Amino acid sequence: MNFTSDNSYGAAPEIIEAMARANEGALGSYGADPLAERVEERLREIFETDLRVFLVTTGTAANALALASVSPPWGTVFCHAEAHIAEDECGAPEFFGGGLTLRHLPGQDAKIELEALADSVTECGARGVHQTQPAALSLTNLTEKGALYTPAEIAALSETAHAGRCAVHLDGTRFANAVVASGKTPADLSWRSGVDILCLGATKNGALAAEAVIYFEPERQAEAIASFEFRRKRGGHLVSKGRLLSAQMDAWLAGDFWLNRAAHSNAMGQRLAAGLRAIDGVEITNDAAANILFVRLPLPVHRHLRAAGAAYYLEPASQTEEGDGVSVRARLVCSPSTPPASVDAFIGLCADAVTVTA
Amino acid sequence: MNFTSDNSYGAAPEIIEAMARANEGALGSYGADPLAERVEERLREIFETDLRVFLVTTGTAANALALASVSPPWGTVFCHAEAHIAEDECGAPEFFGGGLTLRHLPGQDAKIELEALADSVTECGARGVHQTQPAALSLTNLTEKGALYTPAEIAALSETAHAGRCAVHLDGTRFANAVVASGKTPADLSWRSGVDILCLGATKNGALAAEAVIYFEPERQAEAIASFEFRRKRGGHLVSKGRLLSAQMDAWLAGDFWLNRAAHSNAMGQRLAAGLRAIDGVEITNDAAANILFVRLPLPVHRHLRAAGAAYYLEPASQTEEGDGVSVRARLVCSPSTPPASVDAFIGLCADAVTVTA
Amino acid sequence: MNFTSDNSYGAAPEIIEAMARANEGALGSYGADPLAERVEERLREIFETDLRVFLVTTGTAANALALASVSPPWGTVFCHAEAHIAEDECGAPEFFGGGLTLRHLPGQDAKIELEALADSVTECGARGVHQTQPAALSLTNLTEKGALYTPAEIAALSETAHAGRCAVHLDGTRFANAVVASGKTPADLSWRSGVDILCLGATKNGALAAEAVIYFEPERQAEAIASFEFRRKRGGHLVSKGRLLSAQMDAWLAGDFWLNRAAHSNAMGQRLAAGLRAIDGVEITNDAAANILFVRLPLPVHRHLRAAGAAYYLEPASQTEEGDGVSVRARLVCSPSTPPASVDAFIGLCADAVTVTA
Amino acid sequence: MNFTSDNSYGAAPEIIEAMARANEGALGSYGADPLAERVEERLREIFETDLRVFLVTTGTAANALALASVSPPWGTVFCHAEAHIAEDECGAPEFFGGGLTLRHLPGQDAKIELEALADSVTECGARGVHQTQPAALSLTNLTEKGALYTPAEIAALSETAHAGRCAVHLDGTRFANAVVASGKTPADLSWRSGVDILCLGATKNGALAAEAVIYFEPERQAEAIASFEFRRKRGGHLVSKGRLLSAQMDAWLAGDFWLNRAAHSNAMGQRLAAGLRAIDGVEITNDAAANILFVRLPLPVHRHLRAAGAAYYLEPASQTEEGDGVSVRARLVCSPSTPPASVDAFIGLCADAVTVTA
Repeated sequence: MNFTSDNSYGAAPEIIEAMARANEGALGSYGADPLAERVEERLREIFETDLRVFLVTTGTAANALALASVSPPWGTVFCHAEAHIAEDECGAPEFFGGGLTLRHLPGQDAKIELEALADSVTECGARGVHQTQPAALSLTNLTEKGALYTPAEIAALSETAHAGRCAVHLDGTRFANAVVASGKTPADLSWRSGVDILCLGATKNGALAAEAVIYFEPERQAEAIASFEFRRKRGGHLVSKGRLLSAQMDAWLAGDFWLNRAAHSNAMGQRLAAGLRAIDGVEITNDAAANILFVRLPLPVHRHLRAAGAAYYLEPASQTEEGDGVSVRARLVCSPSTPPASVDAFIGLCADAVTVTA
Repeated sequence: MNFTSDNSYGAAPEIIEAMARANEGALGSYGADPLAERVEERLREIFETDLRVFLVTTGTAANALALASVSPPWGTVFCHAEAHIAEDECGAPEFFGGGLTLRHLPGQDAKIELEALADSVTECGARGVHQTQPAALSLTNLTEKGALYTPAEIAALSETAHAGRCAVHLDGTRFANAVVASGKTPADLSWRSGVDILCLGATKNGALAAEAVIYFEPERQAEAIASFEFRRKRGGHLVSKGRLLSAQMDAWLAGDFWLNRAAHSNAMGQRLAAGLRAIDGVEITNDAAANILFVRLPLPVHRHLRAAGAAYYLEPASQTEEGDGVSVRARLVCSPSTPPASVDAFIGLCADAVTVTA
Repeated sequence: MNFTSDNSYGAAPEIIEAMARANEGALGSYGADPLAERVEERLREIFETDLRVFLVTTGTAANALALASVSPPWGTVFCHAEAHIAEDECGAPEFFGGGLTLRHLPGQDAKIELEALADSVTECGARGVHQTQPAALSLTNLTEKGALYTPAEIAALSETAHAGRCAVHLDGTRFANAVVASGKTPADLSWRSGVDILCLGATKNGALAAEAVIYFEPERQAEAIASFEFRRKRGGHLVSKGRLLSAQMDAWLAGDFWLNRAAHSNAMGQRLAAGLRAIDGVEITNDAAANILFVRLPLPVHRHLRAAGAAYYLEPASQTEEGDGVSVRARLVCSPSTPPASVDAFIGLCADAVTVTA
Repeated sequence: MNFTSDNSYGAAPEIIEAMARANEGALGSYGADPLAERVEERLREIFETDLRVFLVTTGTAANALALASVSPPWGTVFCHAEAHIAEDECGAPEFFGGGLTLRHLPGQDAKIELEALADSVTECGARGVHQTQPAALSLTNLTEKGALYTPAEIAALSETAHAGRCAVHLDGTRFANAVVASGKTPADLSWRSGVDILCLGATKNGALAAEAVIYFEPERQAEAIASFEFRRKRGGHLVSKGRLLSAQMDAWLAGDFWLNRAAHSNAMGQRLAAGLRAIDGVEITNDAAANILFVRLPLPVHRHLRAAGAAYYLEPASQTEEGDGVSVRARLVCSPSTPPASVDAFIGLCADAVTVTA
């Protein structure tokens, strides 16, 4: 019963097998291998457009390198106050971006409010050199709070961003979950809605460590792309045996593998949500559109779960195991490897605890 | 009628004369001059304690160098959302601090709410390496919105900061105004209330370009001080003919000169406030404790003032000259060189406009 | 016949199998897995001392993070002018180190001359804040030019460095080759000779992508270690599924696997050297102590090799395929996967070409 | 007898008077004053071409901001190993340039050898993303070793730099001395010989603290100029009371004032050189073309001078007051305020000492 994160399990066996297969023989190093080309081709198919792609090992590197490639050191990146880049990357965007500034925006379930963005972009930089200047909008879909942006919402935010001279970056660490949960195409959820750069995460959806930084309209973005390549090397993120990454991504994108993995995570998330909703005193507090739930657990339920070995994080992290003395707030994440039995066991434990304490 | 800023006038004649006097002969360069030592001695008297001082030409340099000396690149600096370091220095703290992060806090009149600070310090860094870590609290007194912190308020904020492993920095670009307006001693408004580093500004109070970065308890802060010295040189802020700065500061601190300058600014600010309060339709919207007023001006009044050549900024800067169509929001700042006649003329114009349009 | 690099082949099958084994089940993420602990224990055995270790995916990241952890932004890192950090990492140390400075030193076969180091350390920083200050010595063993430092040589350089307040960093991307070629112990080639931080590379010796940053005397280096951990996360180098790295390193260090791989590379290098020395007109120009040869190839020989598909780099990279019109300078690197047949074929081709053109 | 530096004396009285005059009344702050415009106009006259100019307080800031505006963080700046940016600015270019790299080049009297530049530019960046890329050539005229570049020499170096995609920066802290000593026009020594950005120093030639960063062909350099403005503010180098700088520069450039000051320094330098050449055992070791002499002083002469209170630096700084036991190497710099009597007294002391010890 591990609901700590979608990266607490290893990779799917198919990914490991692909890595083993790709391991044979001598190949061009530093990304100059045939698999890397095939990945780029495959992504063009999936996204129905031209693009350039670069592979890195972590989502933090993907996001920070992407943002640094479109923002000067005196740029402002607009993001939700609860975004991963704001809360969980130890200042990586500021580091890679030479001291750029994040501007935190509000919004329910970690979705940026359109009006807040519009106001903030207008205000930012109005005093010329005295202020940092609008440089990028960073969205996350699926959001950190498990919610979905629709293509229309993305398009509205992107339009505002572009009008304010901002590039649009999408942190897609759970992009596959968003595609599956929304029923929209990858294109609709990205470039057709104004996204310029997508960080497409495979690590949380069955890979071992592989993230794709995708630049749409590569000719228009030639300068950012050139900058990315130097920054990646300089950041220590150009792996010599590039097949490590390309083999993972190639296998992950083959057929509907990547979507199937996300479909499983989402299904487990929805199964968990349905089960918990039926239990008195347990409350789901977010718009749990896919595989992430935020729940309020009565303290006895929490203790019962912990005693049974259930693993999950409390949010915010500064909360103690006693929460507010009555309940705790917990984050439950389902992964592509979460067995239905784990979900059912968790629900069962909650139900038991409620019955006993009632 | 120039109310744009307290730095729109030149320096006081006494400052220029002191610079001329100090200009004679060959002296040690790069700060090794006798005047620099005298300034340090004088500050020890004024602050009634041991300290180290470094002089620089701008407030932005003073603040950014000071913060960088006490924060690692992965540090968080807590400040008010409207602080100068957050809104008016083009990301200087992030630049000098190697990509450090500012955390914006709320509070009336640009005074940080104690509870917001406490929550934010507790939350920040709770997830270890995934998050930037608490490094410094940055206060501003007089605040950007013209309000005063009392020693007790500073002490409470400092205590919370220190408990959370933060150094306490005070942006004192208008510290003299705060001393005069509060009737408290420099010591009470700084180290006795927990301030570790004070950026004491002379530029807005009669000097040409001189800011003192003061480290209290210098032995305890030896590491930060050593770091400051390298950062200052590396930042291009170690002027070769150091007397440029020490002569200004020496003259500014002589006797009560510095306090008298601030007393004049404050008196002009209060005279302006009293005059405007008597005028129907003009509203002072901040706690105008010293020399800075934020006012709502009916549009006809604003137009009348502009036509007569009155100079002031609208806030926020993104506002147009038409404001909301009914009124504009303006910032009025009195300086040590603002003549009473200017104040009276401004009040008169407002009164006239109101009468005419009534 | 691929002699381009020791990373042009994939990983050893044993490494891939270990990764597959480690992939099962849910584990603590971000390095909190039992394999990571086992790796640390194993390294303590191998190095016969206490130590702390951190794993990353690339040698560039390992070096740059290590150096940044012991140098302030105003620090100078002394290294050979041909060191990997100076020539092949696109300024990664400068980036991670917040703008630190590399000082290039001379010496045969990329071994730093002791006297040059002594002079440079003495000179550096003598003018106080006007100059960057001595911070670290960075050695490479096996050097970029294929030569070996003896423990005595390392000790002499380290002593000079320590006397000048420098930490000693060893780029050990080919440390295994150095251990095997020298017949010395890992301890003798590192901490017993004064090395404070060793970047131990597995990638070029049979792993897929795994480098260990080892801090000796961890209590003394507690501050650098804490800094490393934040820098690693902030640099995007903390992989979520940490077993990716720990499984590789665990298998690589098991028994004598790591040394056996290097022994093979070295043996192939020596076999190649012996073969080429017997050929008229082909000249080995470096002290080829292990698996790296620098050779002058007569142009007809070079053309014959290229026609037969032999892969290797010309050095310097700015050289054209015609070299100086008479010969080219080539770098030949043997890897743990280089088959003896490849070596023999290469020698045969050289011999043929010489015979034909003679 | 102060020969330590050309900044050990204060400013010329004319500069101080101009500052006092400019101090009257309220003016636009942050560089928006009429004097700033007049300075730009005057520089266009002097340099006979269009240009943009920005004023800052120190040479270190001028150089570092200028270089950062034309180099990406992964850029290489080629400079002489003894250049001020390499040896005396504590890594300011690396700091402002986000971790850019300086490549040190050799050459007599701190003049860069053309061939060394050509080789280095060709080599640099040949391996693509693995290496930092050519970004700028930084020359210094008058050099740190007191020598002169001719326009033809500058043109040849600039051509090589431009062919290698480098901008050409000229550190002109002693540009006035170079103009006077060479008899060439400011245009010939800058843009007509390929210089893109000139840092024109007034501080060492009679001002208090004023340096002009001049961009030639401003339309072509629009991007660098925009970058400069943000970097200047962010670096804390945009002084609020801009007249501090514009008044100095305006007075300094009026008529031939600036050239006359340098003519005096140069004349004193030549007078000193002539006097010392006549003294047995004292050896001038550099090509003393203007106001800087490097001399070998027999130890008894040195002791006699020190006893008499003569002030000068030993070079290198790591040298002790005993030098090599027989002689010391000293740097003697004449300033615009050096009295002929000081020069003669110094020569007399040398002559005395030699006579006594002979």
